[in-house]
Amino acid sequence: MEKIAVLGAGSWGTALAMVLNSNGHDVRLWTHIEKHANEINQTRRNEVYLKDVVIPDQIKAYFDLKEAIDDVSTILLVLPTEAIRMVCQQLKAVLTDKVSIIHGTKGIEPETFKRVSEMIEEELPRELYDEIVVLSGPSHAEEVSLGHPTTVTTTSKSEQAALHAQGLFMNDRFRVYTSTDLIGVELGGALKNIIALGAGISDGLGFGDNAKAALVTRGLAEMARLGTAMGADPLTFIGLTGIGDLIVTSTSRHSRNWNAGNLLAQGFSLDEVLAKMNMVVEGVRTAKAAYQLGKAKGIVMPITFGIYKILFEDADPREIVEQLMTRSKRNEVDEVHTLLKQYYRQD
Amino acid sequence: MEKIAVLGAGSWGTALAMVLNSNGHDVRLWTHIEKHANEINQTRRNEVYLKDVVIPDQIKAYFDLKEAIDDVSTILLVLPTEAIRMVCQQLKAVLTDKVSIIHGTKGIEPETFKRVSEMIEEELPRELYDEIVVLSGPSHAEEVSLGHPTTVTTTSKSEQAALHAQGLFMNDRFRVYTSTDLIGVELGGALKNIIALGAGISDGLGFGDNAKAALVTRGLAEMARLGTAMGADPLTFIGLTGIGDLIVTSTSRHSRNWNAGNLLAQGFSLDEVLAKMNMVVEGVRTAKAAYQLGKAKGIVMPITFGIYKILFEDADPREIVEQLMTRSKRNEVDEVHTLLKQYYRQD
Repeated sequence: MEKIAVLGAGSWGTALAMVLNSNGHDVRLWTHIEKHANEINQTRRNEVYLKDVVIPDQIKAYFDLKEAIDDVSTILLVLPTEAIRMVCQQLKAVLTDKVSIIHGTKGIEPETFKRVSEMIEEELPRELYDEIVVLSGPSHAEEVSLGHPTTVTTTSKSEQAALHAQGLFMNDRFRVYTSTDLIGVELGGALKNIIALGAGISDGLGFGDNAKAALVTRGLAEMARLGTAMGADPLTFIGLTGIGDLIVTSTSRHSRNWNAGNLLAQGFSLDEVLAKMNMVVEGVRTAKAAYQLGKAKGIVMPITFGIYKILFEDADPREIVEQLMTRSKRNEVDEVHTLLKQYYRQD
Repeated sequence: MEKIAVLGAGSWGTALAMVLNSNGHDVRLWTHIEKHANEINQTRRNEVYLKDVVIPDQIKAYFDLKEAIDDVSTILLVLPTEAIRMVCQQLKAVLTDKVSIIHGTKGIEPETFKRVSEMIEEELPRELYDEIVVLSGPSHAEEVSLGHPTTVTTTSKSEQAALHAQGLFMNDRFRVYTSTDLIGVELGGALKNIIALGAGISDGLGFGDNAKAALVTRGLAEMARLGTAMGADPLTFIGLTGIGDLIVTSTSRHSRNWNAGNLLAQGFSLDEVLAKMNMVVEGVRTAKAAYQLGKAKGIVMPITFGIYKILFEDADPREIVEQLMTRSKRNEVDEVHTLLKQYYRQD
């Protein structure tokens, strides 16, 4: 049994804290909002983010970061991408012993194009942590907190570290696979939010399941193309952290990104949509990063670019769909084929 | 413009006839039930299979096969897998001139393990047709008939034949890609029905979106493993006719296979389920074929085998899910990786 601090008491941080607690670990849950910590400790509820569950007594919430991480061997970061650097800086100031780092955040930083583990590496001195592990996969927090069967993947450059994280989380309702493709797992989790925005737009326009399946399938090909250009293994995109997570995010009304897309299709502006939602919509920032990256690297990404135009250039969603449907005739797998051939012949 | 006969007036045959008609072709729709042909001609409705649309006057329904195919250049077969051989035998008796054959049927024959195009080849003399093309992809007939955006793939051993079929069907609501992996396209369309049955079972047991995404993702890996062992290109399974079609069939209540799985999870026996549904549930027969094939070839397919046991050996769905969740710890992509490496190095 380990002592573990979970930083971030949103829906996913809370649900993961509950999994770790049910596996017998000593879990602390940190939030930067004092009132939020008090609410959890006093009411055993996380009303705003995960309202349908009672948080077990053993999980104590903290507002003081130093107290929260005191004597822990593992720190799990589950924060908005935007907050990663700031919290790491705070962590650096209070961390004294070496810890294992796991993160469950899905995003890319615009302008720098850094993945979350790279941002952590840049902020935390190397002597303060062993390895960075990513936990990702198709996992609505609500369902995990209710004990519905769920599968995820733990990934690290170090297989040993991925296995260690697998051991912490795995139980008979929460199945954990391992992988060593850190780049692919992080990019899959981040990029799928863009396509999920698109799925919400498609549904919001009243298109059907056929259109959405096409969007998801062709969107996956774009994720794989961009991801591979950034060093990912293309195969990772057909696993749990790629297509698996994409399916969950694109077909479920739990999804924030889907909901944001749905509102956009109804004619609300991006600012209005973000004001309506009380949680972070990671796909918006990630769409900007992916657009910039795709442009810079010359990668064909008609769906991602179309979504970018709807988000940031006031393009009409219906016109974007028309454009996608009337592109010139194509052979379906040519591009991906070429890419995989190159990938597998090089090693 | 071509003269085309569509054999099979179920929901999919009718919807495809409407696409061809809207592209200006002269389309005849054949059904083996005289009353059904009369209903379509007299009421312009197909009440049992596709009740929400008016069938355009230009599409005439036929009961007499010889009349239906008179002077046509292309024949589109959209029949249950079980009916393919019989209708081909009837066709052989009346066909005089060479035609192009396209089919939109998704299944594998148990015992023989033949794909639909192989069954056609066995029944029709080679001099009676040019090439066989398969049309497949994520496409609920209801949505296609209502003009919702839809994408499919046409596939043939001959690229020219696939392009010809693409030209017949493509318009601004119905986007057609081409491929030359006939084996992969046919197997994807057939095998996804097994996983869709599983998705219905998972939903029927009250599990959530996380569990279903895991099932679909891991199910896709099984499809790719079996398919590749039968000569398919593994990449086809991540395209429209693989994961695309699998998503549509697993997440939509339009789907017969999903519905059948849902009823199974509620405790109905297979016989009861089949009696309740008035359409063919292709996944049931395909599950038997895939189980036999997997056993014969020694392929690891825990999901497919589990569904087979629920269908044919009265296994408890809940116990099957428990078994799947508690298998030994694994690295996610190892098996698929090995497979793709072999595939891409061999040519």
